[in-house]
Amino acid sequence: MKRAVFYVSDGTGITAETIGHMILTQFDSVQFEGFRIPFIDGPEQARLAVDRIQAHAASSGLRPILVSSVVDPEVTAVLAQCDALLLDVFAPFIAPLEDELGTRRTLRVGKAHGLVNYAEYEARINATNYALSHDDGLDVNYADAEVVLVGVSRSGKTPTCLYLALHYGIRAANYPLTQEDLENQELPRRLVPYRSRLFGLSIDPARLAQVRETRRPGSQYAKLDQCRWEVAAAEKLMRVERIACVSTTHSSIEEIASKILSTLGINRHMF
Amino acid sequence: MKRAVFYVSDGTGITAETIGHMILTQFDSVQFEGFRIPFIDGPEQARLAVDRIQAHAASSGLRPILVSSVVDPEVTAVLAQCDALLLDVFAPFIAPLEDELGTRRTLRVGKAHGLVNYAEYEARINATNYALSHDDGLDVNYADAEVVLVGVSRSGKTPTCLYLALHYGIRAANYPLTQEDLENQELPRRLVPYRSRLFGLSIDPARLAQVRETRRPGSQYAKLDQCRWEVAAAEKLMRVERIACVSTTHSSIEEIASKILSTLGINRHMF
Repeated sequence: MKRAVFYVSDGTGITAETIGHMILTQFDSVQFEGFRIPFIDGPEQARLAVDRIQAHAASSGLRPILVSSVVDPEVTAVLAQCDALLLDVFAPFIAPLEDELGTRRTLRVGKAHGLVNYAEYEARINATNYALSHDDGLDVNYADAEVVLVGVSRSGKTPTCLYLALHYGIRAANYPLTQEDLENQELPRRLVPYRSRLFGLSIDPARLAQVRETRRPGSQYAKLDQCRWEVAAAEKLMRVERIACVSTTHSSIEEIASKILSTLGINRHMF
Repeated sequence: MKRAVFYVSDGTGITAETIGHMILTQFDSVQFEGFRIPFIDGPEQARLAVDRIQAHAASSGLRPILVSSVVDPEVTAVLAQCDALLLDVFAPFIAPLEDELGTRRTLRVGKAHGLVNYAEYEARINATNYALSHDDGLDVNYADAEVVLVGVSRSGKTPTCLYLALHYGIRAANYPLTQEDLENQELPRRLVPYRSRLFGLSIDPARLAQVRETRRPGSQYAKLDQCRWEVAAAEKLMRVERIACVSTTHSSIEEIASKILSTLGINRHMF
């Protein structure tokens, strides 16, 4: 039987869910099942949420866990009536911060993932469009790019560019290494001026062959030997050119993005 | 003078930063400046982090805030030597959970945003590729889509599809309403079988005109009158067809995604 975890929030619930996941990964002998209850911004809605949680508890026979990022004390008071383990992700940190900052908190509901700063938000959407239109390495002007991902075709450049755009508002372009680049063991000339913004992605050749096979079944492009050769040549080129490089085979997009930002020294607000 | 906030983690630092942002939005009279220190997975690295934080404190004269999602007690002990307000985002929740679950925590480092479940991760990358290849509404087979976003051109469908894919591994396609659809006030026939997966996006016409003007300066497409007509016709169509709809003008991608999931009743693990 899985233990139910309800993420209750006055906003999107992303914060409650993020911290909830992190805490629950520390209990890997227990199976959890998560449910989101977002936009609970008044006592009425909180009561409905409590009813839903109680109903689930009654049918499962296991006391649920309620992870709450609700700001409004009145709403929290309603949630506290629920027979669940209430983990309030705000509460423990407010008092020490009030003391440290010498000021009282303001009760601002749903600000964490809401639309607060329009200019910042627009930059983020523009960065996403930038990633989409600078994705194939053709006719791309890299002068505007803050990050240029370099790697063989299907090494994971596109999802990483999109993640950097959506999460950090970073304009990320990519450059797929060509057969010619790999044979010559030379960076293409148009990347040279932007050397400080380059970051390499590599991938396990067997994995690459698998990904390419799905894309173009039976092609030379997808053959394991071809993939092995390309990956070895790409990794050598990056070593020689001193381009920092990570493998996308054993890292998540979040880990790759985090490494790119720290390697290139980019400090940007996370959305 | 801005108060420095250091997000220290043994993994990506995303969890520390997410909860840190949320807490700090509650103190909007104070200006903060955030710095990420990810992948601190041993006492040696923790000592370097402490040095960096102390140096910053010395030069700014303000006691920094250290938001930590470090799991390892030995690393935390090093961080605690720092003269900063240490907010440990794990600590307050572990004891109540151990009591509730009747089991001790396991110390698992960096699991929250690491590559844990390969099949899940692949689904996420596949969903991202799906969004990219089902973006223009042309030749799209909607049978595989879990969500189909409907709206006029440039209403925000593409970034939302990408977000749904990257964050929830959801296959989201989009359908740009055509002049013909809007004139006929009819859903295109190929969407009809998938009515339960449709979700509408709208946008303020003045905002739309601005976005389109950047894209195609001086075009009929970008004229305010055209935008007004399209948005009014699209909103009417969605009302008549009873397609739930939100405006992207005043909502963030996170809020829109959260509303789509709760409206369509999709419960999916968040990455």
